[in-house]
Amino acid sequence: MTYFQCDYVEGCHPAILQKLCESNLEQTPGYGADHYCESARQKIRAACGREDLDVHFLVGGTQANTTVLAALLRPHQGALCAESGHIACHETGAIEATGHKVLPLPSRDGTITAAQVDDYCRAHFTSDVSEHMVQPGACYISHPTENGTLYTKTQLEELAAVCRRWGLPLYLDGARLGYGLASPESELDLPDLARLCDVFYIGGTKCGALFGEAVVISDPALKKDFRYFIKQRGGLLAKGRLLGIQFDVLFEGGLYRSICKRAVEQAMAIRKAFLAAGVPLYFDSPTNQQFFVLTPAQGEALGQDFAFESWGELDDGRTAVRFCTSWATRDEDVQALVGAIAAL
Amino acid sequence: MTYFQCDYVEGCHPAILQKLCESNLEQTPGYGADHYCESARQKIRAACGREDLDVHFLVGGTQANTTVLAALLRPHQGALCAESGHIACHETGAIEATGHKVLPLPSRDGTITAAQVDDYCRAHFTSDVSEHMVQPGACYISHPTENGTLYTKTQLEELAAVCRRWGLPLYLDGARLGYGLASPESELDLPDLARLCDVFYIGGTKCGALFGEAVVISDPALKKDFRYFIKQRGGLLAKGRLLGIQFDVLFEGGLYRSICKRAVEQAMAIRKAFLAAGVPLYFDSPTNQQFFVLTPAQGEALGQDFAFESWGELDDGRTAVRFCTSWATRDEDVQALVGAIAAL
Amino acid sequence: MTYFQCDYVEGCHPAILQKLCESNLEQTPGYGADHYCESARQKIRAACGREDLDVHFLVGGTQANTTVLAALLRPHQGALCAESGHIACHETGAIEATGHKVLPLPSRDGTITAAQVDDYCRAHFTSDVSEHMVQPGACYISHPTENGTLYTKTQLEELAAVCRRWGLPLYLDGARLGYGLASPESELDLPDLARLCDVFYIGGTKCGALFGEAVVISDPALKKDFRYFIKQRGGLLAKGRLLGIQFDVLFEGGLYRSICKRAVEQAMAIRKAFLAAGVPLYFDSPTNQQFFVLTPAQGEALGQDFAFESWGELDDGRTAVRFCTSWATRDEDVQALVGAIAAL
Amino acid sequence: MTYFQCDYVEGCHPAILQKLCESNLEQTPGYGADHYCESARQKIRAACGREDLDVHFLVGGTQANTTVLAALLRPHQGALCAESGHIACHETGAIEATGHKVLPLPSRDGTITAAQVDDYCRAHFTSDVSEHMVQPGACYISHPTENGTLYTKTQLEELAAVCRRWGLPLYLDGARLGYGLASPESELDLPDLARLCDVFYIGGTKCGALFGEAVVISDPALKKDFRYFIKQRGGLLAKGRLLGIQFDVLFEGGLYRSICKRAVEQAMAIRKAFLAAGVPLYFDSPTNQQFFVLTPAQGEALGQDFAFESWGELDDGRTAVRFCTSWATRDEDVQALVGAIAAL
Repeated sequence: MTYFQCDYVEGCHPAILQKLCESNLEQTPGYGADHYCESARQKIRAACGREDLDVHFLVGGTQANTTVLAALLRPHQGALCAESGHIACHETGAIEATGHKVLPLPSRDGTITAAQVDDYCRAHFTSDVSEHMVQPGACYISHPTENGTLYTKTQLEELAAVCRRWGLPLYLDGARLGYGLASPESELDLPDLARLCDVFYIGGTKCGALFGEAVVISDPALKKDFRYFIKQRGGLLAKGRLLGIQFDVLFEGGLYRSICKRAVEQAMAIRKAFLAAGVPLYFDSPTNQQFFVLTPAQGEALGQDFAFESWGELDDGRTAVRFCTSWATRDEDVQALVGAIAAL
Repeated sequence: MTYFQCDYVEGCHPAILQKLCESNLEQTPGYGADHYCESARQKIRAACGREDLDVHFLVGGTQANTTVLAALLRPHQGALCAESGHIACHETGAIEATGHKVLPLPSRDGTITAAQVDDYCRAHFTSDVSEHMVQPGACYISHPTENGTLYTKTQLEELAAVCRRWGLPLYLDGARLGYGLASPESELDLPDLARLCDVFYIGGTKCGALFGEAVVISDPALKKDFRYFIKQRGGLLAKGRLLGIQFDVLFEGGLYRSICKRAVEQAMAIRKAFLAAGVPLYFDSPTNQQFFVLTPAQGEALGQDFAFESWGELDDGRTAVRFCTSWATRDEDVQALVGAIAAL
Repeated sequence: MTYFQCDYVEGCHPAILQKLCESNLEQTPGYGADHYCESARQKIRAACGREDLDVHFLVGGTQANTTVLAALLRPHQGALCAESGHIACHETGAIEATGHKVLPLPSRDGTITAAQVDDYCRAHFTSDVSEHMVQPGACYISHPTENGTLYTKTQLEELAAVCRRWGLPLYLDGARLGYGLASPESELDLPDLARLCDVFYIGGTKCGALFGEAVVISDPALKKDFRYFIKQRGGLLAKGRLLGIQFDVLFEGGLYRSICKRAVEQAMAIRKAFLAAGVPLYFDSPTNQQFFVLTPAQGEALGQDFAFESWGELDDGRTAVRFCTSWATRDEDVQALVGAIAAL
Repeated sequence: MTYFQCDYVEGCHPAILQKLCESNLEQTPGYGADHYCESARQKIRAACGREDLDVHFLVGGTQANTTVLAALLRPHQGALCAESGHIACHETGAIEATGHKVLPLPSRDGTITAAQVDDYCRAHFTSDVSEHMVQPGACYISHPTENGTLYTKTQLEELAAVCRRWGLPLYLDGARLGYGLASPESELDLPDLARLCDVFYIGGTKCGALFGEAVVISDPALKKDFRYFIKQRGGLLAKGRLLGIQFDVLFEGGLYRSICKRAVEQAMAIRKAFLAAGVPLYFDSPTNQQFFVLTPAQGEALGQDFAFESWGELDDGRTAVRFCTSWATRDEDVQALVGAIAAL
């Protein structure tokens, strides 16, 4: 059985393991005050083209989302997001557990539009009974989205402009950011995100690290006291250097981007094979997650040798499925899958 | 500069790193459903002498405390603990952030007594205005305590009996449990903890792991739905095997205990040197943390070559300090410190 | 200008005021321990036909909802409700502020069905990744709904059966319960609610009282410690007798029902007038709230002399509106409105 | 039995009841938008000598405290207060239920000092590990305190100056403010409070109203969106005029002060009698609450005819007790008590 089920079935890029081994008995201060964290922070700032960014390393995505939104929102506020957004669906109400409502907006492909945010805010702030409803207090997007799709530069610029007009910080969840940056269709690079978002995170867990996400903050109000929030949410790792080392390696010599680029190329090969076999797309994704609609027979045939994820049954009996590549996917496995698809 | 400041300045025991390297490209399911986690769970159950225990792996201590107490307490309840307890002092109000008051009890050495809990509960539950006050809903202890001290078997049995009488689950924070189990003065082993506590955790971060704590649950009510709590608090690691691998190695062949035993022996050598030099103890600890009272001159002399932690200034101008050993402490560093103490 | 905008524009039924005046200088114990509260509790138990019910008096509806749901739910659980439910829309995220997600179900008329709850629970509890999602932990309904509609006895029995099957307490928000009980179409009386719901509240604020809601609990688990919850949520009124006196008067000699019956009759007169004038219903309500679709001209004409509430603009330029009667509505005002409708 | 147990055993001042009766069938908008609330707000602003104050009416003290502190604090912050402060002791963890730790300071008489706040803040903000501890984010005081004592003008000025230096909003809980303002020893009037505090509340429940507290805000940051907080905490009364009417009456012609003044005079008569009988004070209070130390025989003798509150047993077998007067206390009851004291 070969796994294309998700992008976190292996450990980490070997260069990270090597650095962990080399540094293992070195003594460093705890809680992120070590030189590896500092070096990683500097490299991330450089990659974003700005010296004024705060960079914090957290363990996982739900932790990052909870910590950032708890810091951004006042108690009567909620976060606008796509109805398919990770915080709305798959974090066991972690945001609500900090007291805040998630305010879902309809979305077909996982993105939301400037017009949606504008309409929602206008309706709220011009209502006679605003105070009876949760006030939109931040905007959450994911890029790539949970459906593998990407924002264009125009889309993100318009969204950022609307958010600023209404006073909403814009937060971008980059759990799979590497696969977005490395996509041939990407129009957005790290300096764009630093310019357009108030805060975003660079995903490590799904992009080559053992675990870890780098939260990048440009909003001065959010910078203040952010370490308190990390500690309160259980995210201040005693051996913080573990996170610093990983991002230091990933941001050395373009490793983060190059390993993700290869995964996207593999995903494109899989996509091409499915399209050639007449299998329709479920979402049109230019990143490492690929979504297709399979008949029961097709699903059964491919399920013999390959693990993939069901994304829900359609009304006509077919099934939407997801195939993921990652930094660790082997070319021979992709070739085997491509062969199996051609044989459908 | 040699660090005796705390017990998390190095990485992890080399056997763990080796297993991480060996398993790195193996594909496993996520979120703790892999065979490493299962193997580690079995070993921990065996070490506790019981098959009916639930074992979950979390990333860190604050996360473990928050997750367990959020699962144990109803909204009107709080957790009794020593005023020096970690949840009362050094977790940025993480427990309060889940809505629960920490109910501190006076303590000189870091332990609390059955009588204190009994008195508190009796006063609360016999009051005419109980509902105006936070109801004690759980009892939190640390073992070893933050001051390095240990509960005797009698003390823990009495405490457990009182907790059961009042319906309070007993939760033991074992951030440094290995150093407690390995202490020559320890009267309590894992089967005792499984029998007397409703839930406890076996600390990894400070006892040989890169990071990670193993939460062991015997209370059936708490077992139910515990994974929801882990996920909601951001603790359900995508690559859960990282935690499984570490505890699987630590609980293979008694490694956890043996590496902690050596650290305690080193701590005893340091203690002996200080006592021989006429330096008084601040707390009387039989574990890897040692606390002394230094004059300014002594502190300055030792501070030339050794890093240690200030534990607060005394009224007479002297300072309480902490020296820690760990699984990674080198004998030559201990010898150097012992020599410096003798030269005071 | 005559107000038909809502059902809380006047004070309270004169009999309540009279009792408040008579008892004003009497000395009684605080926090609901007085004889007026006890008498009101007994009368409510009698009206429900059961001696084993706990009855608590709270100040308002949002407070009642928050207090009950905080007591019912564990931290990883949320409350199923109609998307138009008051807790989902108009309580400023009060439920989320206690840490719980509201889980909205689609609804045209404000009710939800047993099948909807069954489907939602089956999908959740049979999922492979249940713990990544909020667990349904209670079911919230309003009766009459926010749209004035009522559950039939069959509907409520089926809903209650499904809730029990999945272990979900059923909570009924009776902010306007009096107008439901007094409706000619009502199939449900207080004993039915006590039998089918685990907890419900009898609305006072909108049904003749100055303020106050009577929470009626049949679920033994919820009874325990409920006063702690009231106090923690700021609902334990020092002069608790104010609430007791009001419900004691309302439940004396059927006053609660008789004053609401008259309001429903007035609402039916208004409804009849609109239908006679060819104005369509927006919701088909048999209670004191009546919803119609007005053209701009109709809205303007009626708006000259009567205040009513806009319920949203339709795509075709018409407006949905609400007219409310209450225990205090005067027959001459209804006649004037009926005349104005006839003149449209 | 005559009650001196607390100051909320009767209803309200008759002038309030009269106004409630007169206005009962008047139709007004809900949620505090009526002319009675507006009139009351104007009178309170006038009494404070400032036009720029926001005034909101809430139902009770715990609700006011929770709402104000939830609005003032960010998630990593807590409120400094005396260890005897109401929020620390008798609100069932209502503050913690909003996620915030209460940070108690030692206090003998119920007040805290500028030096205490200064020391606490200096220790926190100069610590190397600040982010591991709850940040002081507001300062809560009560005036009169729970022990009946008052801040002098100098004390409050110094406290306010320290709070401003450390960026802490100062919040004064005035549950019994009327009895403080009316005390012969009072040095602080409403304009002082508006000048020195960022927010305070004028207690109604214990000072002549049926229920209700008037929150007065001078801090511009806190003014913003405060109604959302009231609604979210269940405090936005549908018939908000009930609160407006009560404060409108209390602030007409100095009624609030005059009825409290009489109660303080009665309290002084009781105090004088106890001192004449050689009974020692437990706290030295110049307001309506009086605290004494009784022998068992004295307690039994007075308990025949008078209800008073036990304030805890002393080590020597004597008991601390509280006698309260209120706006409703009758002179003949005071005379009877004075006679009984003289006969001890």
